[in-house]
Amino acid sequence: MNGASPLGRIRIVLSRTSHPGNIGAAARAMKTMGLSRLYLVEPADFSSGEARARSSNALDVLEGAVVCASLQEALCGTVLAAAMTARRRELAAPLRWAREGAAEIVAATGAGEVALVFGNETAGLTNEELGLCRIPVTIPANPEYSSLNLGAAVQVMCYELRLAALDPGIAQPPEYEPAPFEEIQRFYEHLEQALTESGFLDPAHPKRLIPRLHRLFDRAGLEKDEVSILRGMLKNFQKPTGKVD
Amino acid sequence: MNGASPLGRIRIVLSRTSHPGNIGAAARAMKTMGLSRLYLVEPADFSSGEARARSSNALDVLEGAVVCASLQEALCGTVLAAAMTARRRELAAPLRWAREGAAEIVAATGAGEVALVFGNETAGLTNEELGLCRIPVTIPANPEYSSLNLGAAVQVMCYELRLAALDPGIAQPPEYEPAPFEEIQRFYEHLEQALTESGFLDPAHPKRLIPRLHRLFDRAGLEKDEVSILRGMLKNFQKPTGKVD
Repeated sequence: MNGASPLGRIRIVLSRTSHPGNIGAAARAMKTMGLSRLYLVEPADFSSGEARARSSNALDVLEGAVVCASLQEALCGTVLAAAMTARRRELAAPLRWAREGAAEIVAATGAGEVALVFGNETAGLTNEELGLCRIPVTIPANPEYSSLNLGAAVQVMCYELRLAALDPGIAQPPEYEPAPFEEIQRFYEHLEQALTESGFLDPAHPKRLIPRLHRLFDRAGLEKDEVSILRGMLKNFQKPTGKVD
Repeated sequence: MNGASPLGRIRIVLSRTSHPGNIGAAARAMKTMGLSRLYLVEPADFSSGEARARSSNALDVLEGAVVCASLQEALCGTVLAAAMTARRRELAAPLRWAREGAAEIVAATGAGEVALVFGNETAGLTNEELGLCRIPVTIPANPEYSSLNLGAAVQVMCYELRLAALDPGIAQPPEYEPAPFEEIQRFYEHLEQALTESGFLDPAHPKRLIPRLHRLFDRAGLEKDEVSILRGMLKNFQKPTGKVD
């Protein structure tokens, strides 16, 4: 992690957190996603055993936390402050969903430091705190029970920030060697022959057996090694007597 | 939440969880995203005060948990089982990112019940457990510290499942009837037996034959009819003599 990376320019600000365990969990959540800059505004306690235990191997993030006396202080030097909120509030800017908000935050790191602010576990952010932030962000949740644990909310947002920063793309290149067309065709011929010999396929009344089997194997996309294995199996089944020797 | 909603058809399966607090946190994470069906395989403890405290107002999810003696039991009746894994493993089906995996899981709810399996906090899933699941899913994470807390991982995945369920725009529901878990298991047993009888599989030196075949069929995603066809084929091959009559 360094300052040049988008994730290195994002401050996670926890305001007036009550439970030290949640601060530890937030530190861990941040580190798993490659974030490291934790700011704590008036924390009740963040150095207890519970905070340390829940931070697991992200003790460096916890110990590197910047403790601030006010939210103003934590936001000093940032070019964008975003605030997490569970509910729509009067006069606030339009709410962003987590994913949109994360994209906006990452985009803003091009201009400087950015903060994402999480309020107190029970009361959330005060209207005054919310007023210090430019964009409100919310995690889509069950309207009947939308109260995420603070550490869990930090995890979801850091996850979205990581995806927005790295955009790992969707498709992965295949890791295997696909079987060439002609080998698959030879396997299909072999299969048909073995099924006919065994009596399972009646060439006079083939029904849809062969197309069904083609469909199955085509869907899988056979690999070179797999064709060898399957043909080896067929050869063995074709022996005049099934035997173990 | 009801059975007709995609989220109502998803089982969150926690296998051999050590810490009751994580089970409570998972219950809360699920409920905030509209999921409710928690399955616990051999939990160390899930009814302690810590589990209840961390579940917060999702005590109903915790108390409704189905406790199972094995992963097989938890997967019984599902049409797709997905496994969370932090690392790439040999012979596994191609890894899905959390977002892709969630889309695939939600799409599969069109055909029946689906399970998403989380392993033990320290050891993850065993290879045997992973082998019972068709698709491996991973949360993109910091390669230098990729260890999400279990409850946090459940939160991220349930969040992605909720988004996928509410915006079903990407994946299309399957048009076929997938084979249920237990029928696929019986086919695998039958296959192993037939291969042993034919002499192709030497139980003393199985090499990697069976895992390779599982991987092929898991990749395809077997349909109910296909399992019948394949088992019919095996029965025919097992006849003492190959004959056409």
